Amino acid sequence: MGERFEVIYHIVGEEGTALEKAKTICLKQTVEVGDELVPDGLIRDHIIGQIEQFSALKTGVYQANISYAIETTAFEITQLLNVIFGNTSIKAGIKVHRLNFGEGILSQFSGSRFGIAGLRNLVGVYDKPLLCTALKPMGKSAVEIAKLAYEFALGGVDVIKDDHGLSNQPFCPYEERVSACAEAVAKANQKTGNHCIYVPNITAPATEIMQRVHFAKQAGAGGLLIAPGLTGFDTMRALAADDAINLPLISHPAFLGTLVTSPENGFSHAALFGQLQRLAGADASIYPNYGGRFGFSRAECQSIADSCQEKMGDYAPLFPAPGGGMTLEKVPDMLALYGNDVMFLIGGALYSRTADLVENVQYFLSLVGRV
Amino acid sequence: MGERFEVIYHIVGEEGTALEKAKTICLKQTVEVGDELVPDGLIRDHIIGQIEQFSALKTGVYQANISYAIETTAFEITQLLNVIFGNTSIKAGIKVHRLNFGEGILSQFSGSRFGIAGLRNLVGVYDKPLLCTALKPMGKSAVEIAKLAYEFALGGVDVIKDDHGLSNQPFCPYEERVSACAEAVAKANQKTGNHCIYVPNITAPATEIMQRVHFAKQAGAGGLLIAPGLTGFDTMRALAADDAINLPLISHPAFLGTLVTSPENGFSHAALFGQLQRLAGADASIYPNYGGRFGFSRAECQSIADSCQEKMGDYAPLFPAPGGGMTLEKVPDMLALYGNDVMFLIGGALYSRTADLVENVQYFLSLVGRV
Repeated sequence: MGERFEVIYHIVGEEGTALEKAKTICLKQTVEVGDELVPDGLIRDHIIGQIEQFSALKTGVYQANISYAIETTAFEITQLLNVIFGNTSIKAGIKVHRLNFGEGILSQFSGSRFGIAGLRNLVGVYDKPLLCTALKPMGKSAVEIAKLAYEFALGGVDVIKDDHGLSNQPFCPYEERVSACAEAVAKANQKTGNHCIYVPNITAPATEIMQRVHFAKQAGAGGLLIAPGLTGFDTMRALAADDAINLPLISHPAFLGTLVTSPENGFSHAALFGQLQRLAGADASIYPNYGGRFGFSRAECQSIADSCQEKMGDYAPLFPAPGGGMTLEKVPDMLALYGNDVMFLIGGALYSRTADLVENVQYFLSLVGRV
Repeated sequence: MGERFEVIYHIVGEEGTALEKAKTICLKQTVEVGDELVPDGLIRDHIIGQIEQFSALKTGVYQANISYAIETTAFEITQLLNVIFGNTSIKAGIKVHRLNFGEGILSQFSGSRFGIAGLRNLVGVYDKPLLCTALKPMGKSAVEIAKLAYEFALGGVDVIKDDHGLSNQPFCPYEERVSACAEAVAKANQKTGNHCIYVPNITAPATEIMQRVHFAKQAGAGGLLIAPGLTGFDTMRALAADDAINLPLISHPAFLGTLVTSPENGFSHAALFGQLQRLAGADASIYPNYGGRFGFSRAECQSIADSCQEKMGDYAPLFPAPGGGMTLEKVPDMLALYGNDVMFLIGGALYSRTADLVENVQYFLSLVGRV
């Protein structure tokens, strides 16, 4: 009958209710008609979702493993997400816990173009965590932002990204900022001998993204920041697949958060910030670190990191990039959790430790054994 | 200092906690640094969000009206959504209740190209509800799907859309289906003298959407179905703004549901299925009707319908399109709630009432006073 892929849902309810919900998922995610209208033959036997396993997870929560025929996805990220969770997203008490794709799905997409090894090659840092920071605050001019980029690069940051709120505002126009920052980082690299990359934010109107990407490429950007929650996941996939672009993609979680804030709805942290990011071609996945203001637990962060790096066909593993309200003091525990294959995104702490950004960066690098 | 727009958030917590969360929103949605790092002058006085009002809503929930400088949005839907809820989406217990845009934002976008009046003109139905149905189930061939389209059009359906799960699957390829359905509907229109429109689903990979849209236009489609939760909202905005396309857009809620399933997180029903749809150019907004399997309440549905039609600058009002598990028996109460400016999306019930689709449609039309 052909290959299937599997989605593991966690469903809230008593056993009977949860099983009924699982049966409904099988129909609503595919044929979108009641069971009595499902034609016998191929559609009933193959097209509709099938419950492969159903079991109690804990009191009031059941796990249903539901398989779908791979061709229902049309081998498109948009339709794949639709089959996984399109209409079921509207139903409370159902969470996508895990995605199990075989080669029939994985071979249709390319995954991460660079991944951990590729990004390490670009910045020339092996066997130690990477350091990423963000250019901000919004409201500064392109010249001021570029000055920050220069100092961070001089200090030894590996990846310098636009804050995700920098777009094409009149007070800091995109092209002016990208040119100035790319130049500033190149100048610092000449001094240091490092290979720091500048990563502009290309999250933009659908009709302008490619223009911004090509401008960035031409200006000397070393990567691209994109928020798939705002552009759609397939936009990221398309950028990853484009040989003419050939730049690493840093994925930002803006607007995606609601998918994980409720324990009963949406996606698991690992499925959203690990599996989907890999499928859609990110090379690093930003998410809020544990202990910060966003409330992710240490275990949730670990599940993301594991999901970024576990075997997934022959896709390259990608960098977990924990960030958000991190303090330098937390670095040792983060090292214990993440090991070396991690990109630390540190913003505020690099700005505020002392007035000397170069010194702040070097202090951080010393904490992770880089100097 | 220039114009501002306002977002009304509902925040869970005791008064002190909720106020602290509101202050954090002001920073995190703009400058993304702690208060101590906000530069005095323009950035502190204008760029950061400002709490315009803060008051108790009910026990443990507070309302904060926060204003933002319009230029922080770069006048882009992507960055506007980012300012409204980008990083705050990741924080549990904060819901976007309402968006208050002035001309500074509204004039940057075009809103609905057709709206209620325009869509009525296209289908030639005035002063009564429109009837929309969906072609399904997934798994049928293009020829079988087109046969359904023909019968529904013959019966008198106004808007016949692809089910949102029909994309470009090998068992029902997009171009074959669109050609066949457009032709079938045109043939039926010749017989009936009606102006039924066929609305294919153009939710697709980012790199293929325009191709599908132009194919649809050329084949004689009368509108386009798009799921902005899968493509990104700005893709819909771009289609609405494109004079060369000039087709009404029916917006589908697939993958958006998690934004409303929790009462404490995401968006209100009205903001998501009304205000954002209008801003991004939908002409009809599909959402699950009350009393169906998705759990929307009658009051929530009313709030959506109100939001679709209330004054919003000079934007055209758009059709609320309640659907999902609706039965023909519920029509009278729906008429009482929605009045005549509504597009009823009825799927299963039109298929299952009798084996004669034409008769089923005519029965429905009689219920709403159309025959």
